[in-house]
Amino acid sequence: MKLATLKNGSRDGRLVVVSRDLTRAVDAAGIAPTLQAALDHWARCEAGLLQLAQQLEAGTASGAFAFDPAQAMAPLPRAHQFVDASAFLNHGNIMEQAFNLTVKRPEGVPILVQRQADDFAGASDDFRFRSEDDNADYEGEFGVIVDDLPMGSTPERCEQAIRLVVLLNDVSMRRFVGPEMQMGFGFINAKPATVFAPVAVTPDELGPAWRDGRIHLDMRVSRNGELVGQPNGGEMDWRFGELLAHLAYNRNLRAGTVLGTGTVSNREAERVGSACLAEVRALETLAHGQPRTPWLRDGERMRFEALDDAGRSVFGAVDFRMVLA
Amino acid sequence: MKLATLKNGSRDGRLVVVSRDLTRAVDAAGIAPTLQAALDHWARCEAGLLQLAQQLEAGTASGAFAFDPAQAMAPLPRAHQFVDASAFLNHGNIMEQAFNLTVKRPEGVPILVQRQADDFAGASDDFRFRSEDDNADYEGEFGVIVDDLPMGSTPERCEQAIRLVVLLNDVSMRRFVGPEMQMGFGFINAKPATVFAPVAVTPDELGPAWRDGRIHLDMRVSRNGELVGQPNGGEMDWRFGELLAHLAYNRNLRAGTVLGTGTVSNREAERVGSACLAEVRALETLAHGQPRTPWLRDGERMRFEALDDAGRSVFGAVDFRMVLA
Repeated sequence: MKLATLKNGSRDGRLVVVSRDLTRAVDAAGIAPTLQAALDHWARCEAGLLQLAQQLEAGTASGAFAFDPAQAMAPLPRAHQFVDASAFLNHGNIMEQAFNLTVKRPEGVPILVQRQADDFAGASDDFRFRSEDDNADYEGEFGVIVDDLPMGSTPERCEQAIRLVVLLNDVSMRRFVGPEMQMGFGFINAKPATVFAPVAVTPDELGPAWRDGRIHLDMRVSRNGELVGQPNGGEMDWRFGELLAHLAYNRNLRAGTVLGTGTVSNREAERVGSACLAEVRALETLAHGQPRTPWLRDGERMRFEALDDAGRSVFGAVDFRMVLA
Repeated sequence: MKLATLKNGSRDGRLVVVSRDLTRAVDAAGIAPTLQAALDHWARCEAGLLQLAQQLEAGTASGAFAFDPAQAMAPLPRAHQFVDASAFLNHGNIMEQAFNLTVKRPEGVPILVQRQADDFAGASDDFRFRSEDDNADYEGEFGVIVDDLPMGSTPERCEQAIRLVVLLNDVSMRRFVGPEMQMGFGFINAKPATVFAPVAVTPDELGPAWRDGRIHLDMRVSRNGELVGQPNGGEMDWRFGELLAHLAYNRNLRAGTVLGTGTVSNREAERVGSACLAEVRALETLAHGQPRTPWLRDGERMRFEALDDAGRSVFGAVDFRMVLA
């Protein structure tokens, strides 16, 4: 099942079911007005949404219409919790090597960071940023959206509570990353709004690419129309369930919690490329003594997409322009 | 105007207007079903809520009933953004002095940390925690809840968007604070659910205690019935507007964003006491070479309250038991 949220002037938009090939949609208001409402009552809503999805595939859904990704908000335009992991240790290792950083991380403890969830950006919306001097970057990530999880849930239980899979671009202003990490309190100005691909999908839509608690899809990143990286999500150093269980150690996670993977990164980065500029520039620094690839400038266009084995887009594309505010 | 959210079995509870003396309440469902809904449409809802409040004071509100704080959830049982400041530098200074810490903070940059907002606890609910070995602590704080603020808002504009003032206990598990700060990504296991006093109030309810963009009220902290601290909020090193403007530098803040002050702390801590055990223990360490006051244990009762000049409770009390899960 694939779900999206269309703009309707309200903060949370309106929930639609989208066809597998992303060409058609049907309003889901009869079941739940918004995706958060569906997640709040997933057990009650799931069957009805599935039925709509089946009708849409069969061509029998009444009121079906052409799906326009440009009309999509983030699947959850706002959430109640957004935690971003840095779950590809390869990325951190490259950064630490290139810039002589040391993250003092207790063995076995995943890197997770609490993030704002009040204003997620739509896949096609112009992204307004303050200054090119802030060193604008992207991070291609996958993510999951979970159901209620009580305090102390095991990794297995956490994994069973994953309701949806998403694709996101964790926009980053690199000028602030180092100083904010040095303070120890995580990110404030380093991380403006996060951009989500238009469609959230249930894990079964990934077929064999959903296994080992990981998303085995390539994150295809294009800058101004040129493919610059396609690392695979399968190299994640933790299962989603392990990341969620760490988070749930001493508190409940409530329905609609979004967990991002952190920038997808592969040990074969030289061959498959990177999903963020920071990593590209770190590899250039290691190879040539200094970075060569510039940060994002006003007017640049970024695209992030994941394709299935048959070359079909799974989540639709994040495809937007950076625009100076 | 004073507002609260009563338990009704739903995730967001039901919005009520509470009398100034906290004894009576009236359902606000005719104006907005939940506090988030009221904040989403404040311009449309404010007049109606004010009218209800006036009727309640005048004794003419139909359907008014006795207000029972034990039935209150957090005013926002869940929000879309919760940012906690550490805006009393005195607290940080004591901690750094006692434990030879150094927070590398660029001059003039406030300490802010993104926090989860999916599961705020009610003022009287038992607080379940995992282990006494996690070094359970409290932090008495004030906070504000704001309306929409566009990217780049000035401190003045931010301050005008403050709709409500709240009181909270930022429960902290100290065992994790140091290691998580060293990683640089802020708090995960260090900060379980946050507890809010039952009533949120508009800034005008504070009278002269609302000035200089600060809350000039004592944070009265009691442990097992004994008053252990009453530092004043007026010593905050930034105005609320300055903290909010830093946050809004490169992104919008959406309605319902909660900003906490960080633990209230005064330079005269020896005289007025502290609003968290970490500070008490740091002062003991400076005075005696080691801490004397133990962390919170199973079954202990904590109370946090602020009184106006006439000795009346402004927000109602956070008053709950720590209970091992």
